[in-house]
Amino acid sequence: MTTTESHRRFVLAARPSGEPRESDFRIESAPLRQPGAGEIAARVAFLSVDPYMRSRMRDAPSYAPPVGLGETMTGAGVARVTASHHPAFSAGDWIAGITGWQSHWVGEPRGFFRIDPELAPPSAYLGVLGHTGLTAYFGLLDIGHPKPGETLVVSGAAGAVGSIAGQIGKIHGCRVVGVAGADEKVRWVVNELGFDAAFNYKTVSDYRRHLAPLCPAGIDIYFDNTGGPVSDAVMALLNVKARIAVCGQISQYNLEEAASGPRLDWLLIVKRARKEGFLVTDYAARFPEGRAALAAWLREGRLQHREHFVDGFENTPRAFLDMMRGENIGKTIVRL
Amino acid sequence: MTTTESHRRFVLAARPSGEPRESDFRIESAPLRQPGAGEIAARVAFLSVDPYMRSRMRDAPSYAPPVGLGETMTGAGVARVTASHHPAFSAGDWIAGITGWQSHWVGEPRGFFRIDPELAPPSAYLGVLGHTGLTAYFGLLDIGHPKPGETLVVSGAAGAVGSIAGQIGKIHGCRVVGVAGADEKVRWVVNELGFDAAFNYKTVSDYRRHLAPLCPAGIDIYFDNTGGPVSDAVMALLNVKARIAVCGQISQYNLEEAASGPRLDWLLIVKRARKEGFLVTDYAARFPEGRAALAAWLREGRLQHREHFVDGFENTPRAFLDMMRGENIGKTIVRL
Repeated sequence: MTTTESHRRFVLAARPSGEPRESDFRIESAPLRQPGAGEIAARVAFLSVDPYMRSRMRDAPSYAPPVGLGETMTGAGVARVTASHHPAFSAGDWIAGITGWQSHWVGEPRGFFRIDPELAPPSAYLGVLGHTGLTAYFGLLDIGHPKPGETLVVSGAAGAVGSIAGQIGKIHGCRVVGVAGADEKVRWVVNELGFDAAFNYKTVSDYRRHLAPLCPAGIDIYFDNTGGPVSDAVMALLNVKARIAVCGQISQYNLEEAASGPRLDWLLIVKRARKEGFLVTDYAARFPEGRAALAAWLREGRLQHREHFVDGFENTPRAFLDMMRGENIGKTIVRL
Repeated sequence: MTTTESHRRFVLAARPSGEPRESDFRIESAPLRQPGAGEIAARVAFLSVDPYMRSRMRDAPSYAPPVGLGETMTGAGVARVTASHHPAFSAGDWIAGITGWQSHWVGEPRGFFRIDPELAPPSAYLGVLGHTGLTAYFGLLDIGHPKPGETLVVSGAAGAVGSIAGQIGKIHGCRVVGVAGADEKVRWVVNELGFDAAFNYKTVSDYRRHLAPLCPAGIDIYFDNTGGPVSDAVMALLNVKARIAVCGQISQYNLEEAASGPRLDWLLIVKRARKEGFLVTDYAARFPEGRAALAAWLREGRLQHREHFVDGFENTPRAFLDMMRGENIGKTIVRL
């Protein structure tokens, strides 16, 4: 007996202006085709939704081309191979790669790799052992250069990247201070993840006045996921030779034009500080090193990670929109 | 026959709000005293006026304490020793150091060094062989990392630092594009210094549109002396892995509060670019290396420098104010 499984995908239906809406995505369905020579068929089990996807919805030059209207939304997924005509993969394998927002992958397995479900649950390869964990790892270590006793501030501290970056800072002996957007997030990073302090920026008005007493020795490293006024407050508290790893600017992604803020580059001179942007994909050659380190810390219980599961492929757009509004704690993953 | 020489100095009389005025300085005169044990007496021959002095007039934390009201204005000078009770110096020696805005130095020769007037005229030790030349040298080489074929943009291109930074870029094989504030400055950097192109930002409104065709391969290095909207235009044209050496922000120094500008940190991510502030004093241990390189390029005729002399100690404040308004080309030096 065969069931006729349908192949579903979300395409970009409209380019949002400001905050994206569910109507910017459209679900499409087609019969599931069989893989041809050199191809595999895999059933997607988990999909990642991440802030960078907002910029791919914009028809503007960036580090990657935008998703075209009517094209499948881009994104990472974890899938299980159901049939393979490719020598590197067999039915039953768990794989990870850029599946896009769809229920199945049928095609050449370009960029996919086999994951080890014994090492960690497959969904971890979208979070702590995937791009978000690797982003935290390379951004903090390669740009932040944490040293014992230094003070690290992390914005978006309870997000998929920030929560890992802060813990890696603790592992390296830093005092770690988080900035998050909910009291529950503040409690989580301090009580569960071991951050030294954190505050909810949504319930205070003067960020600098709240941050200063939490950083009595100033700020040596800033891992920036948000940008905006939180970053301005950090700038005022930098120490000499401070390092700023610019990972994300989620406070800015829904804006059609750049917001205005104070010009603070003079503080970079006063503090001889460095601000550097990075993309995890530039570190692809070192992913095995990063994954090995993260997996070891997980095994040793030195790294906690939290997955915020949203069930049902049809809920992928909503999962993305909720994540963009900061309604998640940890890594948002759609479970199919 | 003895002449009674008087010891004159300019003290900070008032903290300016906005653009400084001559009335912010006050000249004071006293009898010249004799040097005591371990001291020297020297007659100042040349004084440097530089943009950083504006921030020392402000009562706000910075990398150095502010000049106190009634205290001698700080600054570098070149002087000739008239009497010495210090083993390292003899009458007749040419010396350079932080003399402050005064006609004589009588005291311990802390931080002074003997200069070689055979290598270059003494005034050069306030410019191309002094802090401004060294600022260009270390900022461009240590932060900019110029490589042959790359494009370097210099703001404040006809200033004491910018004019040297651009030429060092040429020596390293870069395409060098200057931004300056007068047609005469544009002509000087292109026709005399060998910049590949330059434009006068004061006669155009859309900086980006003017800069883009001058940088057909994008911008790899930005040596920033000014900040402000010129820097915004550069940000939009950065190449992947671009480096920004933040040397000065002269467009901002007279402001009481930080000006507003577009938040452009997201471009640092897109371009994986680095922006770093620096102070030449952090490179003090390497000044001999820098001076040797600059002196060699001078001797070989590969480096031009221009001194804008203002005669008369009493004109020091005016020289400073004119320089802050950009009325100089090259290094402004007061000749006593």
